[in-house]
Amino acid sequence: MTSEWQRLQSKLPEWVEQNRHEYIHGKVAAYIPELSKAPADALGVVVMNGAGETVVAGDTELQFTMQSISKVFTLILALMDNGEDVVFSKVGMEPTGDRFNSMLKLELVEPGIPFNPLINAGAIAVSSLIRGNSPEERFARVLQFFRLLTCNDTLEYDQDVYDSESATGHLNRSLAYFLMEKGILRGRVEDVLEVYFRHCAVKLNCTDLARMGLVLAYNGRDPVTGVPLIPRRFVQIAKTFMTTCGMYDASGEFAIQVGLPAKSGVSGGIMTMVPGRYGIGLVGPSLNRMGNSTAGVHLLETMSRDLDWSLF
Amino acid sequence: MTSEWQRLQSKLPEWVEQNRHEYIHGKVAAYIPELSKAPADALGVVVMNGAGETVVAGDTELQFTMQSISKVFTLILALMDNGEDVVFSKVGMEPTGDRFNSMLKLELVEPGIPFNPLINAGAIAVSSLIRGNSPEERFARVLQFFRLLTCNDTLEYDQDVYDSESATGHLNRSLAYFLMEKGILRGRVEDVLEVYFRHCAVKLNCTDLARMGLVLAYNGRDPVTGVPLIPRRFVQIAKTFMTTCGMYDASGEFAIQVGLPAKSGVSGGIMTMVPGRYGIGLVGPSLNRMGNSTAGVHLLETMSRDLDWSLF
Amino acid sequence: MTSEWQRLQSKLPEWVEQNRHEYIHGKVAAYIPELSKAPADALGVVVMNGAGETVVAGDTELQFTMQSISKVFTLILALMDNGEDVVFSKVGMEPTGDRFNSMLKLELVEPGIPFNPLINAGAIAVSSLIRGNSPEERFARVLQFFRLLTCNDTLEYDQDVYDSESATGHLNRSLAYFLMEKGILRGRVEDVLEVYFRHCAVKLNCTDLARMGLVLAYNGRDPVTGVPLIPRRFVQIAKTFMTTCGMYDASGEFAIQVGLPAKSGVSGGIMTMVPGRYGIGLVGPSLNRMGNSTAGVHLLETMSRDLDWSLF
Amino acid sequence: MTSEWQRLQSKLPEWVEQNRHEYIHGKVAAYIPELSKAPADALGVVVMNGAGETVVAGDTELQFTMQSISKVFTLILALMDNGEDVVFSKVGMEPTGDRFNSMLKLELVEPGIPFNPLINAGAIAVSSLIRGNSPEERFARVLQFFRLLTCNDTLEYDQDVYDSESATGHLNRSLAYFLMEKGILRGRVEDVLEVYFRHCAVKLNCTDLARMGLVLAYNGRDPVTGVPLIPRRFVQIAKTFMTTCGMYDASGEFAIQVGLPAKSGVSGGIMTMVPGRYGIGLVGPSLNRMGNSTAGVHLLETMSRDLDWSLF
Repeated sequence: MTSEWQRLQSKLPEWVEQNRHEYIHGKVAAYIPELSKAPADALGVVVMNGAGETVVAGDTELQFTMQSISKVFTLILALMDNGEDVVFSKVGMEPTGDRFNSMLKLELVEPGIPFNPLINAGAIAVSSLIRGNSPEERFARVLQFFRLLTCNDTLEYDQDVYDSESATGHLNRSLAYFLMEKGILRGRVEDVLEVYFRHCAVKLNCTDLARMGLVLAYNGRDPVTGVPLIPRRFVQIAKTFMTTCGMYDASGEFAIQVGLPAKSGVSGGIMTMVPGRYGIGLVGPSLNRMGNSTAGVHLLETMSRDLDWSLF
Repeated sequence: MTSEWQRLQSKLPEWVEQNRHEYIHGKVAAYIPELSKAPADALGVVVMNGAGETVVAGDTELQFTMQSISKVFTLILALMDNGEDVVFSKVGMEPTGDRFNSMLKLELVEPGIPFNPLINAGAIAVSSLIRGNSPEERFARVLQFFRLLTCNDTLEYDQDVYDSESATGHLNRSLAYFLMEKGILRGRVEDVLEVYFRHCAVKLNCTDLARMGLVLAYNGRDPVTGVPLIPRRFVQIAKTFMTTCGMYDASGEFAIQVGLPAKSGVSGGIMTMVPGRYGIGLVGPSLNRMGNSTAGVHLLETMSRDLDWSLF
Repeated sequence: MTSEWQRLQSKLPEWVEQNRHEYIHGKVAAYIPELSKAPADALGVVVMNGAGETVVAGDTELQFTMQSISKVFTLILALMDNGEDVVFSKVGMEPTGDRFNSMLKLELVEPGIPFNPLINAGAIAVSSLIRGNSPEERFARVLQFFRLLTCNDTLEYDQDVYDSESATGHLNRSLAYFLMEKGILRGRVEDVLEVYFRHCAVKLNCTDLARMGLVLAYNGRDPVTGVPLIPRRFVQIAKTFMTTCGMYDASGEFAIQVGLPAKSGVSGGIMTMVPGRYGIGLVGPSLNRMGNSTAGVHLLETMSRDLDWSLF
Repeated sequence: MTSEWQRLQSKLPEWVEQNRHEYIHGKVAAYIPELSKAPADALGVVVMNGAGETVVAGDTELQFTMQSISKVFTLILALMDNGEDVVFSKVGMEPTGDRFNSMLKLELVEPGIPFNPLINAGAIAVSSLIRGNSPEERFARVLQFFRLLTCNDTLEYDQDVYDSESATGHLNRSLAYFLMEKGILRGRVEDVLEVYFRHCAVKLNCTDLARMGLVLAYNGRDPVTGVPLIPRRFVQIAKTFMTTCGMYDASGEFAIQVGLPAKSGVSGGIMTMVPGRYGIGLVGPSLNRMGNSTAGVHLLETMSRDLDWSLF
């Protein structure tokens, strides 16, 4: 293990620079102004081990919103709030093969519940399961959970990103009303979306993400503090979904080329982990056709191959 | 012509009774309480000629809401308000082969505009094109147009039906937000749906429907009053859509078995016409699998075959 | 009527020249070499009246293969061989909204029979219903029927086109095996496709097509010879399908812009008619995005508007 | 490790009997007579360790055909024959969310290559990549490879199963012709299907399957003989696909509930493994709605939970 850590220390900066140029094959998300401002050629990564030590390379000072990465942890919170039976009566466990915001399977495949909790429809259904007497209270619980996981009490959501997503998120509204029609959503659509858009807009950096991944890598116990934060079974569920559905429509390819549980977001963030060893947080805003950080995916391929990290 | 009219007078009551029992192969719409109260075995029809004379048979006293039948006339009003070019930049001209409330083609077929103005997505897009400074003003113009066409100044929408549809119409909201995402909808979703749900809830009887059909049968000029109400080209467009898409997913079969332009609604109403001769209004609340009045379709088959009415 | 005929005589050459240039917005079919050789800028049309007189304009000497136009007449022959009940147990009556060679609805919509007899899957199913003890005998009956309708005993299929289509028609084989799986096809796939590819490869000119249209325009009786060739009900069925599904995915638009029953083929041919008056045969090899003769469709729009031919 | 082996020895018979009754919630495949004869309530399992020792329980004497399980190894052979680049130019790496024999994504998602090598379309494409000058030679190479992996020189395909599948496999022909149209298939359709139907019909028992799984569990080196049989990278690819797509449309659920790479077949067989430890072969002919052995899946859930085998 020591030598692996040393290799990371010596090679990571080089690997970042090698893969950074891949940004030219992608584009920064532009559907809201706040995302489009991100630097296209940025690439940063933090690897954190069980002692809380880090290897850092590239643009790790960059702040970005969690976007879809948050779905992993709202799923976990919904599981902690409701148990497996309730959650899996509202969302399935299968990859879809369709775009993350697709409505096809909702219409075509009975009983019309979202195929999994990491596509938008599924994540919206999951958001509606978070306990709380109001959208404010539900989001406060989500934020508190994210702060606990990151050991970062200053974590907040970005008001501008939230406002923009809320103002333009018609497709998510369309999905949410479809779910409402099917009886899958708890509460009012606008209340559910308020929670959903807020947790997607939580702002952090690579170190925060690495810490979140670290908790998953150690089966729910923060290895630095020793505090148990998530029941192991729910970590297992989350890691499985990250493996089968975490990287949008390129999840299968990522499993073959990298082989680690991971979740990406439209801001260019990726959270991944080496089970039992490291949490990893990464950002590279230029996205490939599938919506994943183009340089980030290449960097993780380099790392996983060199260090033989695939689970398979 | 005289003999055809006489035959209608002598045979229509018999034909109604012959076909009434077909109601047992269908079901009254039950998604809102107001519709479910309709008498399943009712069947009534009014045939009106160019002199405004009628042949009447069955339960023609029944009041019912226009539902999808209204889409024919909001299309016409939108055409009168905007012209062909504007309207057909927002909706297409093709049958879909999918359910009237399907989202498939919106997602699968570029550029994602509704295939035609008689499916829900298309009718919602069309409703957003009605001129007016507020939803109230837009609906007032629709209602005024319907009153003109029926020569019935007491025509109103049914508040209970409107309230129920508005409260439960999540799938229509889902469609509307999808259209909003695609830039197809003018104005706010809830404003558009307010107009849409209201015009679907306009209440009338078979005589009113027959009068509306009569105007179409005479190419837009009310033959009783001699007043021109609709430009002939827009009547032609409406009749064409009624022929290719007017009877939901059974439009093709209806064209082959009846061969007349027609539009049905989920209340069991059907408006049809014999071009140059009659307007026909019909109601039979029990619906077949495709959403059309089961006894009503059979009755129209009997009439069209006996009197050789098919356009083809 | 006389004046309409005179107007046709005086205007048709001019209309042909006006619309000929539309070919630049399309492309000649190129999936087999035989089709790709057709002159892109050709446009010819023959209008034939009940006395067998013709108005002719443009490149009417061009020979071309019937392709999908043949489907109208194999449907009629299958109806004459089997009756409505048998035929409509194998194919439906509805437009699909999908491409003519799509498999979507076969898989998605129970019971998996082709939606109508004018898409490829439906036409293949219909071909399997033609009576005969062998593919040769079945095709011989089809050819004999086409000769009767055209009053042209020299009609033959084009061997090169047949060979090319048979050699490259993998998608039609795919459709046929799917139908076989569903129990919809009579006989062996290769036998059925032999008949299908042959009748698509029957070669003729605009005058032949106009004569075929003329028989339909006069409800199945050849008005020139007075000989009844098709029962009127089957003509009615054919004309209805031509109206709702005859022009591929542009059938709805054609109904609105032209308003006549018509069937197009990938060779650029279009057969249409003015009921009770004319048969019309047309060819213009350059196809629009939907697979219809681009100049041909524009020419028919010009003719129908000027002479007010729409059925609607 | 010793204690795990002892626990397997003491508990496996009990677990088999506990889960056997789950067969009543499924059905034996009946599309060909040969499969329908399998005993519905049979359940057998063999666990083999790196020393070649086995723990055996239930009906392990049962012989059955590999069916879809064979796809894992033809993929590996195609990779050994062609390398990753060639293979992944013909098939993708993504789960589909659709039925294993679906054509939807081939038509809907460009470029129309099969989403992964474990659905039928993908496996047929892969079969066409096996090296050899004739179907006979290609299948002989496949069989030789399967014999090597099982250390069983008597392995053969079942002629009756092959004949039946070949005679009734119209849907696979439909898929194959679609692939041919897209230029994905090497060679003639019937030649490719001959190889495909034969390798699906290879007959074996649970011990054979366990041995095949064992080779994968040890990264391609047979741990009993020490002989390297498969390059480790190709084992990794195979195990990844087994995890994301190995259990048809229940692969996601299996990953969450069992968490091991696995592949099932319509005969009721399942091959799985515990990486670095065991190969597992199982048979239970009664299939659940998704096509997996219903008792078999339950048995594996019991085993994986008790022994904490999930990779995640």
